[in-house]
Amino acid sequence: MLFPFGKIDPEQIADVLQSLRRGTPRVHCITNAVAQTFTANVLLAAGAVPSMTIAPEEVEGFARSADAVLVNLGTLDATRKEAIPLALSAAKSAGLPVVLDPVFVNRSPVRCAYARSLLAQSPSILRANQEEMSSLFPAVPPLEALNGTGIALAMTGPEDVVWLEGRSVRLANGVPMLSRVTATGCAGGGLLAAFLAIETDPVLAAVSGLTVFNVAGEIAAERAAGPGSLEPELLDALYNLTSNDIVERFKTAEQED
Amino acid sequence: MLFPFGKIDPEQIADVLQSLRRGTPRVHCITNAVAQTFTANVLLAAGAVPSMTIAPEEVEGFARSADAVLVNLGTLDATRKEAIPLALSAAKSAGLPVVLDPVFVNRSPVRCAYARSLLAQSPSILRANQEEMSSLFPAVPPLEALNGTGIALAMTGPEDVVWLEGRSVRLANGVPMLSRVTATGCAGGGLLAAFLAIETDPVLAAVSGLTVFNVAGEIAAERAAGPGSLEPELLDALYNLTSNDIVERFKTAEQED
Amino acid sequence: MLFPFGKIDPEQIADVLQSLRRGTPRVHCITNAVAQTFTANVLLAAGAVPSMTIAPEEVEGFARSADAVLVNLGTLDATRKEAIPLALSAAKSAGLPVVLDPVFVNRSPVRCAYARSLLAQSPSILRANQEEMSSLFPAVPPLEALNGTGIALAMTGPEDVVWLEGRSVRLANGVPMLSRVTATGCAGGGLLAAFLAIETDPVLAAVSGLTVFNVAGEIAAERAAGPGSLEPELLDALYNLTSNDIVERFKTAEQED
Repeated sequence: MLFPFGKIDPEQIADVLQSLRRGTPRVHCITNAVAQTFTANVLLAAGAVPSMTIAPEEVEGFARSADAVLVNLGTLDATRKEAIPLALSAAKSAGLPVVLDPVFVNRSPVRCAYARSLLAQSPSILRANQEEMSSLFPAVPPLEALNGTGIALAMTGPEDVVWLEGRSVRLANGVPMLSRVTATGCAGGGLLAAFLAIETDPVLAAVSGLTVFNVAGEIAAERAAGPGSLEPELLDALYNLTSNDIVERFKTAEQED
Repeated sequence: MLFPFGKIDPEQIADVLQSLRRGTPRVHCITNAVAQTFTANVLLAAGAVPSMTIAPEEVEGFARSADAVLVNLGTLDATRKEAIPLALSAAKSAGLPVVLDPVFVNRSPVRCAYARSLLAQSPSILRANQEEMSSLFPAVPPLEALNGTGIALAMTGPEDVVWLEGRSVRLANGVPMLSRVTATGCAGGGLLAAFLAIETDPVLAAVSGLTVFNVAGEIAAERAAGPGSLEPELLDALYNLTSNDIVERFKTAEQED
Repeated sequence: MLFPFGKIDPEQIADVLQSLRRGTPRVHCITNAVAQTFTANVLLAAGAVPSMTIAPEEVEGFARSADAVLVNLGTLDATRKEAIPLALSAAKSAGLPVVLDPVFVNRSPVRCAYARSLLAQSPSILRANQEEMSSLFPAVPPLEALNGTGIALAMTGPEDVVWLEGRSVRLANGVPMLSRVTATGCAGGGLLAAFLAIETDPVLAAVSGLTVFNVAGEIAAERAAGPGSLEPELLDALYNLTSNDIVERFKTAEQED
């Protein structure tokens, strides 16, 4: 059964988080040099088990023995370009879900073309902001760009939108200060992969991953004196997050479907 | 008008910081693997927008669309060696200021020779400590080494010296514990690039960047229990730094010119 | 004189830590991308001086001018594979101690074969957990695997075991939450190298390095609200650790020899 776009029950999100903590899924991340450490720490704090190698010789083995794969295109060097198709094909043959995060494609035409070629491989979730969507699909509105592909979209911004095949929900948790800590978006992409490893419905996985990350961010921002303390507070909040926190704080914006 | 070496008005430094926060300049950083994340966080906390790719295929595009470029020679591998000249020539053709930080040239003759070749490309600011200067220019006193080059020197140490063409000022802010956190110097170099993106006078940019970083370091050290808490405290202090903090704490050592 | 396995005096450990702080040994680390920054910060907090380049062109110079070398096999890419033998042979010709940390060999057969080939080069200490030992030596019990090699084993787990040529001691300090911060094990391997630079007996060096790290972890965990705050607290605790902390908290498990 697909996610009920019209009325989200935050208890469902809390349940998926509990399943993640029980399941301790392995997430193999090919991600950028700036985000590697923080992504690993976000995954560990949430209850997942990260691996991070980008070595082409090893990446298939790591991907195959994982439960989900993250492909993030930041700092896209030759090694990463060689490793990504290997990881994707290992994920496909093992039936694993994949999150694609085409960061900064709006700053690099080379990267943008590369990202388009990866979309042909049908990741479960595309995570992108508005500018990245406009670069990937210059002639199409973001919420129509993936029509007919079966790929779910997690579009991040002041509000996040989760979209699948014409239906969408807008999420309203989060705090602006998160953007003053590097790689929060990238690490959030890693968390989406962890939720996909546990929850096969990509919409529920995306809604859960975004909500858990943003609710933890809200709690952290209430305790932090600035972006420096926000980072450890965010990890502590993720680690300590209760079902109650989710239920009390969950917020959608006006919903379309 | 060049910076008045004789009498620095800290209000001027505070004004440049406010301009930086309003201007949110983009800084493209080719920096070492250990410093990438912290440098990005320092830039974000101060109000700048970092990008960090070192991929040769992408680095020109990122440099061209930035407002300043940092070249830091730590962990100088083949990819970085290929990317640096591309970034420098993109910066030159786009008229962007460049900070060169030749870290650990005193530990690696290969790196030292490479750093010398980059000086021929006229960065706006060379950031180096005394040992690095002695390795780069073994036969010349540090404060005469760049005579006639038009390159400003930001020489870091227990006191920092900002020098340009025979005139110099010695700055006395900062705390020793900063050296117990890795990459503080490297991240400080990133901050110099952010100030250069805003302030065309390299001396005022260097004085401002060093002072803002070191005053934030002093505030952080007063709150920190050790180098672990110093790092988040430093980012918080940078984020929250007021004009008043700068005016009250700014300190020069005896001045030469 | 070899370490008295039967009765460890924690004063001895405290003395080695004081020697480390006075000696500020240089440790060159070839370690994985996720662990580089944290390892550098752990070494700085403890009193050592890290260098981290993996560039094959430079690594011999850095290794030769260091006092100990760490080789950690995480994120084992082509550059690291080229750099490691160069660093090891520079270490050997300079008579420097080496710590080998074959992380995740249980996840990658390629890496496992490579790790075996490095054991032939006689590192001073092999740091590995039970799963890694079983992958490296599938047919042999971990505590017999290195018989006759002269290599000391620091086997980490809920309890740590330090073993050399048939004699061993089990250490009982540490807290589970350390495993929720990425690269704590890898950074602990860096600390072993720093202790080896100061203390030539590999057993005393390993016992000291593991105990100092784990006692600092215990102090940090008492102050931390989760894995996010555990990281800065750990660095602060390492920096502030007293001889008294070590003497009061040192704990062995039942001893075998």
